[in-house]
Amino acid sequence: VLANLRIVLVETSHPGNIGAAARAMKNMGLSQLYLVNPKQFPHQEATARAAGADDLLQHAVICSTLDEAINDCELVLATSARQRHLAWPTCDPRECAALVHQATDKKIAIMFGNERAGLSNEQLCQSHYHVHIPVEESFSSLNLAAAVQVISYELRMAASTLQPKIVAESEPMANHQDMNAYYQRLQSTLVELEFCDPKQPRLLMQRLQRLYNRARLSKTEVNILQGILSAVAKNTKTN
Amino acid sequence: VLANLRIVLVETSHPGNIGAAARAMKNMGLSQLYLVNPKQFPHQEATARAAGADDLLQHAVICSTLDEAINDCELVLATSARQRHLAWPTCDPRECAALVHQATDKKIAIMFGNERAGLSNEQLCQSHYHVHIPVEESFSSLNLAAAVQVISYELRMAASTLQPKIVAESEPMANHQDMNAYYQRLQSTLVELEFCDPKQPRLLMQRLQRLYNRARLSKTEVNILQGILSAVAKNTKTN
Repeated sequence: VLANLRIVLVETSHPGNIGAAARAMKNMGLSQLYLVNPKQFPHQEATARAAGADDLLQHAVICSTLDEAINDCELVLATSARQRHLAWPTCDPRECAALVHQATDKKIAIMFGNERAGLSNEQLCQSHYHVHIPVEESFSSLNLAAAVQVISYELRMAASTLQPKIVAESEPMANHQDMNAYYQRLQSTLVELEFCDPKQPRLLMQRLQRLYNRARLSKTEVNILQGILSAVAKNTKTN
Repeated sequence: VLANLRIVLVETSHPGNIGAAARAMKNMGLSQLYLVNPKQFPHQEATARAAGADDLLQHAVICSTLDEAINDCELVLATSARQRHLAWPTCDPRECAALVHQATDKKIAIMFGNERAGLSNEQLCQSHYHVHIPVEESFSSLNLAAAVQVISYELRMAASTLQPKIVAESEPMANHQDMNAYYQRLQSTLVELEFCDPKQPRLLMQRLQRLYNRARLSKTEVNILQGILSAVAKNTKTN
């Protein structure tokens, strides 16, 4: 899906933001960058902030009109900081990612406006959806590259939840028998150390059981804990 | 919840990244910024990139050690780009936000390492969870402020879909300082018992840290474990 997706930066003022946006895109596995009337491009600051995403800059498609950048697209989304006077179908970045992933085989554009003013009402109206990144109302102006980062991140998250999840502790887990053997030896050690009252061991041992069971020990970890008890035994004074 | 949350930037090299991180935080409604040994701060580039989030920079807490920044925290998360040799409980930014929102009334830190190297293994082991931002493997190095942006965005998204609380730990939780004191005493005890090689304590101690951090100990539980160490000390043969 993401191969059919382009990020369209419209009338960007600062070349550094173009570079940082390219870096954010490449980090998240996006590759198609379209630039509509960039103020300065190419530019060394763009290259510096791209930090290795130079290929995206080199292959960036420079357009002189927004139409040129999105003409062949079947799904167009426009990022918008503000609620506009004209109500439009609106989604948040997560819903945006879901929409993109539903649009298999479609050509898709996500547009970002200029740093100072964002997209104009006219430009916003070229889109199927407005994407609104949730922000603090009193401090709502996101950096352009940060906005690209958030959207790209959600696109990647949506892609990766289609994959099987990772997890899988590499070590074999301790079983009940392992733990039981450990708890019995722990209890007799604590009695010997006079830390545990042999007539009333229960609450203390239950607390320790709860603690270790919560951690879900591996066999290796139980072996380490057993090793510590052996070391304690070897070093304990005989009465 | 977010009022109890601090973003901890460790040994940041570029002041511009500190400013951009502050801006990202404020956009998303976060306010507490901690800086551990920033290379240059305050700095005009930080102020410029903060773009109005100057108050976060002015109130930033400057620390000379990581411990100082997280000592009173009960939940510590560490962002990590790489998969480390020692597997640790890991979450993605969305799961991170869920964990934070479940930890009502807890003091929480999310740590970010230095631009070049990230957090060291030792620093990573101070955390309960590693947060892994999904990235393209062939181009995986995220800009620091971009990483702060992604995490802050997920925290805000989680806040806006706030669910009722799940777990209520009835006991007060141990904080980082409690755990650190315990680990130090555990290590010296294990050295004394000749279970731990004082020249190579690291892997063993990291394993034990992982085990106990996984269990998220209460203060009472740490006191019990400390009591066991006292009992061991009292009963150990003097050489």
